[in-house]
Amino acid sequence: MRYCFGVDIGGTTVKMGLFSTEGDILDKWEIPTRTENEGEAILPDAADSILKKIEERNISDEEVQGVGVGIPAPVDAEGVVQSTANLGWGYKAVKAELQCLLGGIRVEAGNDANVAAMGEMWLGAGRGEKNVVMVTLGTGVGGGIVIDGSMLVGETGAGGEIGHMCVKRDEVETCGCGLHGCLEQYASATGIARLARKRLEADDAETVLRGTRPSAKTVFDAVKAGDIVAIEIAEEFGVYLGEAMANLAVIVNPAVIVIGGGVSKAGEVLLPFIEKPFKKRAFFADKKTRFVLAELGNDAGICGAARLILS
Amino acid sequence: MRYCFGVDIGGTTVKMGLFSTEGDILDKWEIPTRTENEGEAILPDAADSILKKIEERNISDEEVQGVGVGIPAPVDAEGVVQSTANLGWGYKAVKAELQCLLGGIRVEAGNDANVAAMGEMWLGAGRGEKNVVMVTLGTGVGGGIVIDGSMLVGETGAGGEIGHMCVKRDEVETCGCGLHGCLEQYASATGIARLARKRLEADDAETVLRGTRPSAKTVFDAVKAGDIVAIEIAEEFGVYLGEAMANLAVIVNPAVIVIGGGVSKAGEVLLPFIEKPFKKRAFFADKKTRFVLAELGNDAGICGAARLILS
Repeated sequence: MRYCFGVDIGGTTVKMGLFSTEGDILDKWEIPTRTENEGEAILPDAADSILKKIEERNISDEEVQGVGVGIPAPVDAEGVVQSTANLGWGYKAVKAELQCLLGGIRVEAGNDANVAAMGEMWLGAGRGEKNVVMVTLGTGVGGGIVIDGSMLVGETGAGGEIGHMCVKRDEVETCGCGLHGCLEQYASATGIARLARKRLEADDAETVLRGTRPSAKTVFDAVKAGDIVAIEIAEEFGVYLGEAMANLAVIVNPAVIVIGGGVSKAGEVLLPFIEKPFKKRAFFADKKTRFVLAELGNDAGICGAARLILS
Repeated sequence: MRYCFGVDIGGTTVKMGLFSTEGDILDKWEIPTRTENEGEAILPDAADSILKKIEERNISDEEVQGVGVGIPAPVDAEGVVQSTANLGWGYKAVKAELQCLLGGIRVEAGNDANVAAMGEMWLGAGRGEKNVVMVTLGTGVGGGIVIDGSMLVGETGAGGEIGHMCVKRDEVETCGCGLHGCLEQYASATGIARLARKRLEADDAETVLRGTRPSAKTVFDAVKAGDIVAIEIAEEFGVYLGEAMANLAVIVNPAVIVIGGGVSKAGEVLLPFIEKPFKKRAFFADKKTRFVLAELGNDAGICGAARLILS
């Protein structure tokens, strides 16, 4: 049997998984992320944990195919990050350093959003496909793109930053990135709450959302209950996201677009709101692109990281 | 010495080139494209011409590394086209068929716009880079994308169809593809002429373009002469193209964007009109993306086709 490890480094915990190269998850565990002292302990801690697991399970050196790592920052093709917001790192040659700590075991590293897309391709909603886009609708809008089975990394590791496509040229409010009209301002959980507040302010239409502090969750709960105003809000969200995905598809021509993140917990009700405007605006060659919900949840990171070793 | 051939199949002629694998163009020639009978002679003609050249130059079998082909249609990862507008072909397994006609010499095939991007990366304006976008401003707007040294083909071979990104949601006129507001409607030679006509109709401002039938060429000639109205037209063109490139860069994170096609013959004067709105709208990680003019002209196709063999 041959094994690979997937490591998903987050700001609070480092998630880890042991996989067979056939794609069975054999073990899952996590350790705290020690970000103090510029995060100097993070990679040594991860290496120790992996080496301990190898010993525990009596896995021989030849059976370990490698260790993949997902990092919440742009990662270039050489596995180097320039800085991270949450880990305390400045410049760090993650791939080289971890490989050294692991006594020469092969290491591959990637941005966490791209890695999650690899995970969904390998073991989740994109199974069997080679051209997969993953859109993560959380506090922000993250994106990961897989082309012909490999991550679209880009020149500086910033490929797939879908959340910062401009979808509204005349927006006056500023996105977290400093630009105006980014997809993230309309399609993230925060963005949907903002659309909802604006809709409620626009008139006095009756809705269960009235008098509440609407969130993405309460909006889609109201959609499920048939609330007309909530449906209008969901339609507005869907036009922004669906049309952006049509522009993305013209460039990337994916087989499938996987919708993940907290907002996707709304379930299947979400998809038609995105699909309808997508279909209307899609270039003929992209009309067959499918939309599906993510399947792996928090495991997408460890799965995709492990998958990096199989490319 | 090792050799590769580049074949660029167009509607009128098939351009061919013999290259050393180091990138020297050793020979260039062309043959007519015989499109009659569903284009059945096109590949046999090309194969005959290549085999004749191999004989002429006394090249041994072992010295031929392969033959790359660019085709004016979507080409999937297996080198198959479903149909072509200009060659008469329906479904054709180009890679397999030409490989057979050449007695087993390795063949790779790609879409002509993607192939041209590979050419500019190898021997033209993108030399030394691995993440290259090429935008061809001709009758339409074509696009080719190279990621980490490989063409972005996509699921059905329709990756990089940049001309059909939506840049104006409320456009009433229809693009050739049936959609509304495609980049091609503003940034192609035809699109620039249309912007010029609309600008002239808008008021009576004095311009050398008044009373003429403006074209992309006459607009940029007038720009060079300092014509204020022509500069306004170029600015409008530049905003559409520059902002579209900012959205593209967010997805692809290229090192360089190569501007080619007939419109690019205007020369360096073109670039600031695109760069300024690009820089204004670009995501921080993409601010360093450079814009350059294509260098290979009509040779981009044979160069990029030959380069396919070296991947």
